[in-house]
Amino acid sequence: MTFKEWSTTPPKGWNSWDCYGASVTEEEVRANALYMSEKLKKYGWEYIVVDIQWYEPSADSSQYHPFVPLEMDEFSRLMPSVRRFPSAKGKKGFKPLADDIHRLGLKFGIHIMRGIPRQAVHNNTGLLGTQITARTIASTNSICPWNTDMYGVDASKEGAQLYYNSLMDLYADWGVDFIKVDDIAASTLYGMHKEEIELIRKAIDQTKRPMLLSLSPGPAALKNGAFLLENANMWRLTDDFWDSWNSLSGMFERCERWAPFTRKGNWPDCDMLPLGHIGIRSVDGDGADRQTRFSKAEQRTMVSLWSIFRSPLIFGGELRDNDVWTNSLLTNIEVNKMHDNIFESKQIYRKNGIVVWQAESRETRYFAIFNIDEKTNFVPKEVFQKELKGNEFIDLWEPQKKLTEKTKIVKHDVKLIKMAKEKAE
Amino acid sequence: MTFKEWSTTPPKGWNSWDCYGASVTEEEVRANALYMSEKLKKYGWEYIVVDIQWYEPSADSSQYHPFVPLEMDEFSRLMPSVRRFPSAKGKKGFKPLADDIHRLGLKFGIHIMRGIPRQAVHNNTGLLGTQITARTIASTNSICPWNTDMYGVDASKEGAQLYYNSLMDLYADWGVDFIKVDDIAASTLYGMHKEEIELIRKAIDQTKRPMLLSLSPGPAALKNGAFLLENANMWRLTDDFWDSWNSLSGMFERCERWAPFTRKGNWPDCDMLPLGHIGIRSVDGDGADRQTRFSKAEQRTMVSLWSIFRSPLIFGGELRDNDVWTNSLLTNIEVNKMHDNIFESKQIYRKNGIVVWQAESRETRYFAIFNIDEKTNFVPKEVFQKELKGNEFIDLWEPQKKLTEKTKIVKHDVKLIKMAKEKAE
Amino acid sequence: MTFKEWSTTPPKGWNSWDCYGASVTEEEVRANALYMSEKLKKYGWEYIVVDIQWYEPSADSSQYHPFVPLEMDEFSRLMPSVRRFPSAKGKKGFKPLADDIHRLGLKFGIHIMRGIPRQAVHNNTGLLGTQITARTIASTNSICPWNTDMYGVDASKEGAQLYYNSLMDLYADWGVDFIKVDDIAASTLYGMHKEEIELIRKAIDQTKRPMLLSLSPGPAALKNGAFLLENANMWRLTDDFWDSWNSLSGMFERCERWAPFTRKGNWPDCDMLPLGHIGIRSVDGDGADRQTRFSKAEQRTMVSLWSIFRSPLIFGGELRDNDVWTNSLLTNIEVNKMHDNIFESKQIYRKNGIVVWQAESRETRYFAIFNIDEKTNFVPKEVFQKELKGNEFIDLWEPQKKLTEKTKIVKHDVKLIKMAKEKAE
Amino acid sequence: MTFKEWSTTPPKGWNSWDCYGASVTEEEVRANALYMSEKLKKYGWEYIVVDIQWYEPSADSSQYHPFVPLEMDEFSRLMPSVRRFPSAKGKKGFKPLADDIHRLGLKFGIHIMRGIPRQAVHNNTGLLGTQITARTIASTNSICPWNTDMYGVDASKEGAQLYYNSLMDLYADWGVDFIKVDDIAASTLYGMHKEEIELIRKAIDQTKRPMLLSLSPGPAALKNGAFLLENANMWRLTDDFWDSWNSLSGMFERCERWAPFTRKGNWPDCDMLPLGHIGIRSVDGDGADRQTRFSKAEQRTMVSLWSIFRSPLIFGGELRDNDVWTNSLLTNIEVNKMHDNIFESKQIYRKNGIVVWQAESRETRYFAIFNIDEKTNFVPKEVFQKELKGNEFIDLWEPQKKLTEKTKIVKHDVKLIKMAKEKAE
Repeated sequence: MTFKEWSTTPPKGWNSWDCYGASVTEEEVRANALYMSEKLKKYGWEYIVVDIQWYEPSADSSQYHPFVPLEMDEFSRLMPSVRRFPSAKGKKGFKPLADDIHRLGLKFGIHIMRGIPRQAVHNNTGLLGTQITARTIASTNSICPWNTDMYGVDASKEGAQLYYNSLMDLYADWGVDFIKVDDIAASTLYGMHKEEIELIRKAIDQTKRPMLLSLSPGPAALKNGAFLLENANMWRLTDDFWDSWNSLSGMFERCERWAPFTRKGNWPDCDMLPLGHIGIRSVDGDGADRQTRFSKAEQRTMVSLWSIFRSPLIFGGELRDNDVWTNSLLTNIEVNKMHDNIFESKQIYRKNGIVVWQAESRETRYFAIFNIDEKTNFVPKEVFQKELKGNEFIDLWEPQKKLTEKTKIVKHDVKLIKMAKEKAE
Repeated sequence: MTFKEWSTTPPKGWNSWDCYGASVTEEEVRANALYMSEKLKKYGWEYIVVDIQWYEPSADSSQYHPFVPLEMDEFSRLMPSVRRFPSAKGKKGFKPLADDIHRLGLKFGIHIMRGIPRQAVHNNTGLLGTQITARTIASTNSICPWNTDMYGVDASKEGAQLYYNSLMDLYADWGVDFIKVDDIAASTLYGMHKEEIELIRKAIDQTKRPMLLSLSPGPAALKNGAFLLENANMWRLTDDFWDSWNSLSGMFERCERWAPFTRKGNWPDCDMLPLGHIGIRSVDGDGADRQTRFSKAEQRTMVSLWSIFRSPLIFGGELRDNDVWTNSLLTNIEVNKMHDNIFESKQIYRKNGIVVWQAESRETRYFAIFNIDEKTNFVPKEVFQKELKGNEFIDLWEPQKKLTEKTKIVKHDVKLIKMAKEKAE
Repeated sequence: MTFKEWSTTPPKGWNSWDCYGASVTEEEVRANALYMSEKLKKYGWEYIVVDIQWYEPSADSSQYHPFVPLEMDEFSRLMPSVRRFPSAKGKKGFKPLADDIHRLGLKFGIHIMRGIPRQAVHNNTGLLGTQITARTIASTNSICPWNTDMYGVDASKEGAQLYYNSLMDLYADWGVDFIKVDDIAASTLYGMHKEEIELIRKAIDQTKRPMLLSLSPGPAALKNGAFLLENANMWRLTDDFWDSWNSLSGMFERCERWAPFTRKGNWPDCDMLPLGHIGIRSVDGDGADRQTRFSKAEQRTMVSLWSIFRSPLIFGGELRDNDVWTNSLLTNIEVNKMHDNIFESKQIYRKNGIVVWQAESRETRYFAIFNIDEKTNFVPKEVFQKELKGNEFIDLWEPQKKLTEKTKIVKHDVKLIKMAKEKAE
Repeated sequence: MTFKEWSTTPPKGWNSWDCYGASVTEEEVRANALYMSEKLKKYGWEYIVVDIQWYEPSADSSQYHPFVPLEMDEFSRLMPSVRRFPSAKGKKGFKPLADDIHRLGLKFGIHIMRGIPRQAVHNNTGLLGTQITARTIASTNSICPWNTDMYGVDASKEGAQLYYNSLMDLYADWGVDFIKVDDIAASTLYGMHKEEIELIRKAIDQTKRPMLLSLSPGPAALKNGAFLLENANMWRLTDDFWDSWNSLSGMFERCERWAPFTRKGNWPDCDMLPLGHIGIRSVDGDGADRQTRFSKAEQRTMVSLWSIFRSPLIFGGELRDNDVWTNSLLTNIEVNKMHDNIFESKQIYRKNGIVVWQAESRETRYFAIFNIDEKTNFVPKEVFQKELKGNEFIDLWEPQKKLTEKTKIVKHDVKLIKMAKEKAE
C-alpha cells in the first residue's frame, strides 16, 4: 500500500491559520474539533490541523517573533509549547490532544517547517540514535525567506535521513494523521526543496502510519508536477490565499494548468477557504479580525471551483461562529458528492469573462459556468447550445430555479450544473 | 466521437524529413510505403507522412529557398508541385497518392505550415466561399522564424475559420489521415499559437474525417499541457531531434515532466527516430548523408525510452536501406506490445547516471534501466533489491541473457525488463 | 570629425507623430516650421522632423494600412508620396521641402523604418549600382512587430551596405539633417538590431554630411549602452511616451540608470514632449484629438526632468495651437541655458516620493526637487540642510517666490533650483 | 572632499585570498608587504589587503567551517584572531599591523562580510553606544549564500546606522585605508544590497578617514551602475576570477559594457590577478597549490586588458615567489603609465576572434589588439589601415620588434600599442 492509497478522495478539514496565525491554543483547537464532529463530520469533514509554531511559547498573532527560543527536546525536535497546549506537559507532545480528536471520530494534523531548528545548530545539540549532531546535518545556507526558526537539512549528509525519521516516528507515536510541511514547495529564494521532500517521503513511509503529506507554500512549479505525483498527497498552487477577488480570479488559470495532475492520492491544492469569521489574530499584511470579504457570489464561486477541480477543502474560519449561509456552502450534499466522485475535470471554455469547467462521475456530468467578469452576463450561446440544450439539468446551488438560455449570471457568480449522463450523450 | 478516439495507441509511421528535407518526391514516398506495407505493417507501422514544402517546385534539400513562388490554387491554398508529385497533375492534389497508399493498407499524412501564403497576402488573392481576401485575414506581423512561405492567420478576423475549413476540407477530400502542422507549437518569436490551433481543431472536426493532429516544433511549454490535451493528438517535446547523444540524454528530463499528460488520444511526441540511412539531402546545420551517428546502445536506448514513455514512433530513415539490426529495433514484438498496452509509465529513479522508468499494462510490469553515464555501471543495488529481486523477469532486448545484481550496463545502454504482475506484487 | 561632434548640445525640435501619426502633409510641416522659425528659433529650437510613412499615399491617421503599396523608386528606395508632399513631384523627393526649411534657418529631419520594402523583396526589384537584387539582401525572417512595410536587411549579405549607402546618399542629396530610424533599437521580437545600426552608421559617415542619427523605439537595453555611444546621437529610453503620469513617473528610474551615458554627441532620449494640442489624427490605443492630459505641474516636471537629464527636447504638439503657458515651458531662458551647459547630472536622492537631481555647469549648480508622490510634500529636511541651506538660490520656474524649509511642493510638481557655484562650495 | 577624490588613479596592491583563502597569517601578510615595499612600491603598488575571516581562529584553507565561534568584542564587532594575528592581542585589533605597513610606505586594507555576526544575533549581544541589541537590527532573513558568519542588517531599524558607524570608527582607529565588503554587490539570492551599501557609505564618510570602498562579489548588475558611481570606489564585474581562459575571454564583454562607468574615483573591477604562485591553501572548487595556469600570452592579455580598461590591479600570488617573468608584468613602466593616465578607453572592434581596445591619455593614443581566437591571426586589415598605417608606434610588451601588416598574433596573445597623438590625428 502506497501513500496514494491513503487519500482516495480529496481531503476535507479545518486549519487554524486563517483565524489564529501562529498562536492557536489547545482550547481553540478542541472547540473547533467538537463543532466539526457535531455539525460537519457527516458531510465528510474530518481533519483538524494545528498550523505553524505550536512550539513557540510567546506566539500571539500571525506575526513571528524573530530569533526567540523555541520549545525543543534533547534530540533537536521541536515540542508543543505547554503554555499554549497544556495537555503536552510531561513531554507528552500532541498525543493527548490527538487521542481526544480521534475519539470524536476525526483526524489530527500538524504543520511543521522544513529543516532543523537554528537554535539546535548554533548550540550543536544531539540527534536521536546517533553521535552526529545538529550542526553537521544543517545546510549551511538554506533558510526560510519569512521565518527564522529553522535551517534546511543537507540531504547529502549522514544523519539527515535519521533526523527526519526521528521526527516522523515521534509524530506517528503522537497519532498524527496529516502533516503539512512548509517552506518546502516553493521558496522565493530556492524554488522547490526536492531533496528534503524525498527525505520526508521516506521518513513517513518507514513509520508505516498513514500520514497525509501536504506541501506548502505555493506556487509549486508545473515542471515539478511529475515529481510531486510520486511524493506528496497535496501541494499548493499559490502563495497564501486570502479573501480578495484578484486571488480568486487568478486561481482559474492555475486550476486549468494543474487539472491533468489530479488523481487518487494526488490533490493539487487551492489552499484554505477563508470563509466565515477569520483573521481573529491576523495582524500583518492585509490582516484584520473580520467576516470574509468575499461576497456570497464569490464564496459560491470559490467553493464551486475548489470542488469541481477536486482541490482539498480546508476551512479557515472559526467554526463556532459559522452562520447558516456559511454552513450551507459546506453541507450541500450534491456538491460534496460531485467533489468525491468525479474522476476527470477540466476547463472547456474561457472567453469574455465566462469560464466553464466540465467534470464527470460514473453517472453524472457536471458543468460549472463562472462569470468572472465585472458585469452580469448570459450563459454563452455556444456553450448552452452545445452542452445544455435538450438535456435535463439542475443548478446545485439553486435547484428550484429553472436555468434557460435567458438566465443571467451576476458578476463573480456561478451556475453549478448537474446532468444525468445518459441524457448528455 | 472526439478526436481523442482516433488514436487509442501511440501512432507509428514514417516521415520524409530526416532523409529528404523539403525535397521528397512521389517516387520516394511510394517506395517507402511499399517497404512498410511489406515489412513493417504487421508490427503496427502504418503512417506515411510527406513533410514540408511539397508545394515548392524548386525544393532540393533541407534548406529553403526564401521568397520563391509556390504552387497555389485560386483560393490561396497551396497545392503539391506537379514537378515533384506527378500524380497531382490536373489539380488532383494528393488524392491519387493517398488512394494508392490506402490500397497498401497504410495511412497517409501531410505536413503544413501554419498560416496563409505570403504570396497570397501580397497579391491579395481570394478565399473559398467568401468575398473576403487573403490580405484581410493575415496577421500583420506573425511569421515563421525559419521559413518565408506564410503569414499567420488572425483568428479575430472574419474569414479566418472559413479559410482553415477550406484547407481541411481539401485534405479530407484527398483522403489525408494525419496532419502535422508546423511553426505552431513553439515559435521562438511568439511561443505557442493557441488561437490558430483552435481554428485548426475546429476545421478538422467539421470535416468529420479522422485526421490525427500533430503539432510542431517543440518544445511545447508545460503550461500549455492542459490546452493540448483538448486540442491535439501529438505535440513535440523538443526542437528537431537528431542523432546526437546530448539531445537523447536531454530527452529523459522532458519525458519525466510530460509523462503525466500521456493518455489515449494524447501522445506527447519525442520526434522522429533518426535511424538507419538518413540525411540524404540534408545540407544545413550538422546535416550530411549518413548512417545514424547513434551507437547501437544508443539506438536501443532511444527506442526503449520512446516506447516506455509511449511517444509516437515515426521512423526517419530511408526504409529501403534498413539493415537487419535497424529492423530488429522496429519489429521486437514484446517491445511493440509494451508500447501499445501500458497505461501508466513514469520515471522512478535518477541518480549517478542511472535512470529507471517503470510502466504497467494489465498483466505486466516493465522497467527500463538506462545508463546515461559515460562509463559502465551496475544496476543500482537499491533498485535491484526493491524492484527486481525475487521476481522472474527478462530483458526484452536480450531475453536469453540472465540479468543479476552483478550485470553491468555499458555506457548509454539499457535493460528493458518485463515481469509478470502477480510476481511483482 | 566624428558624428559625435555634430551635436554638442542636446537637440531641440518638432516632430509630426504626436499630432498627425503616419499622415502628416507638406502643408502642416511647413506651417509648423514657419512657427518655429518665428517664435522658437531664438531659444535654440531648430529641427523639423517628418515622422513615419511619408511614402504611404493612403496614410490617414496613426493606424497603418497593412500590406498596401508604397511609393518606391526603381532602386527599392521609398519616396515621398506626391499626394501628401506635392513638392516631391518629378522624383525630387524631399529636396524642395528641405531647401525651404533651411531658408527659414532650421534643419530638416525624416523618419525611416529599418530594412528594405517587402514589396521590393516579393517583386525582387533592383538596387542602385549593383546586379544584386532586393530578395538577396533581405533577412528571411526579420520583421517589424507593428508595421508591415519592411523586411530587415541581412548584414552578412553582399549588397547590404551598398543598399544602405544608396539610401543615405539620397537623403544627403535631399539635404536631410536628422534621421530617426525606427524598429531598430528595441524590437519586442529581436531586441536591438546592432548589425543594421552599424550598416547605417557607416552609410551616414560615408556621405560626409552631418545627419544626426536617432534610434527608436525604446527601451534600449543598458547592456548596449557602450555600443550606442559609438554609433548613435540619440536613443530612446522607453517605448512611445504619451501624456500619462505613469509613464512620466516611470521615466525617473530610466533617467537615473542612463545618466552615466550622456555626453557631447550622445543624448539618451526621453522621447517627444506630448504638450499642447496633440493626437489630432491619433486613433489607436488611447489616442484622441486633445490638449495634453498632463496637469501644469506635470508639464513642468516633464520639462524639468528632460532638461536636467539633458534629453533631446522634441516638441510633439501642433505649434500653431500653442498657448502662452505652453510656450513658457519652451522659452524659459534659464532652463534652456541649464539644458545646454551642464556637463554632469545625476539623481542624488529618492525617498518617500521625493526625487532630487543635481547638475553642474561651469559656474552654476542646479537642483531639481520633484514630488512624484500623490500628496503635497515638503523639501526633505536632509536635502534642504545639506544642499540648500545658507546658499542663495532661485526657482527657475518661479524666480520671484522665495523657497524656504517650509515651502511645500504640490503633488507631481517640481522646484528647479539654480545656485552660484562659489556659494555652493 | 568626497570619497571619489581618494582614488584618482586605479588602485594597485596585493590581496591574500588567491594564495591563502580564509587562513592568511600575520607573518605572511608582513612578508608580502615587505616584498612590495622593496620591489613594487616604486611602480605604484601600495595596498596590502587581508581577505576574509581574519576573525576565525580555526580557519585553515579556502573552505569555511560552518557555524563555528568567531572572535568578537562586547559590541558585536568581529576582531582579529590573536592566534593568527598575534599583534592584535590585548584587543589592539589590526592597529599594530597597520602601523607597521604604513611605516613601509604602504596602505593597509581589510575584508569584511556585510552584516552582523549570527552568534551576536542568537546570543543577543550589545551594540556600541546604544541600548539596542544585535537581535533587533538583524534582518530576519538575509544571509550570505556561501558563508555562515553573518546575518544582514535591516536598514529600516533604529541602530542599523549606529552599528555600521561603530565598525567603521574602529577600522579608522586601526588605520585601515581600504575596505573590501563582501556578499553585498551581487548575491545569488538577493541581488545587490543597496541599503546596506548606503549605510556603509555614510559610516565611512562620517569617520573622515579616506578608506577606499571595494564591493564584492560580482557580477554587479549594470542597472546599478549609476548607484555605484555615487557609493563605491570599486565594484566587481564577475564572480571570483581564477586562472581559466574561459573566465578571461568572458571578461572582454564585461569590460566593454562597463567602460562608460570608469572615471576618477570609480573603478569597475576585474578582480585579482591570479598570477605567479597561487592556491597555496586553496582546497575547494578547482583549487590547488600551483603556478598560475595561464600561459604567458594569456597573462599578458590579462594585464593588458585590466590596464587599458583601467581596472584596479590587485595581485593574488605569493609575492615572495615571483619570478622575473611575473615581475615583468607588474613593472612595465609604459604599461603602468597608460593605466594611470588614460582618461577614456573603449572597445572599438570585435570580429572573428580579434578584439581591439583604444584609449587616450593627454599625449598618447593606445591600442590593444587581442587575439582571443584559438588560432594565430593577423591584425585585421581594416584595423591596421585605419588606425596604425602611416603612424609610428611600438608594442609596449615587445618594443624592440617592429609590427607590420604581416605581423601575426598567436592565440590568446596581445599587441599593446602606443602612438604619439600628433601622428594619430
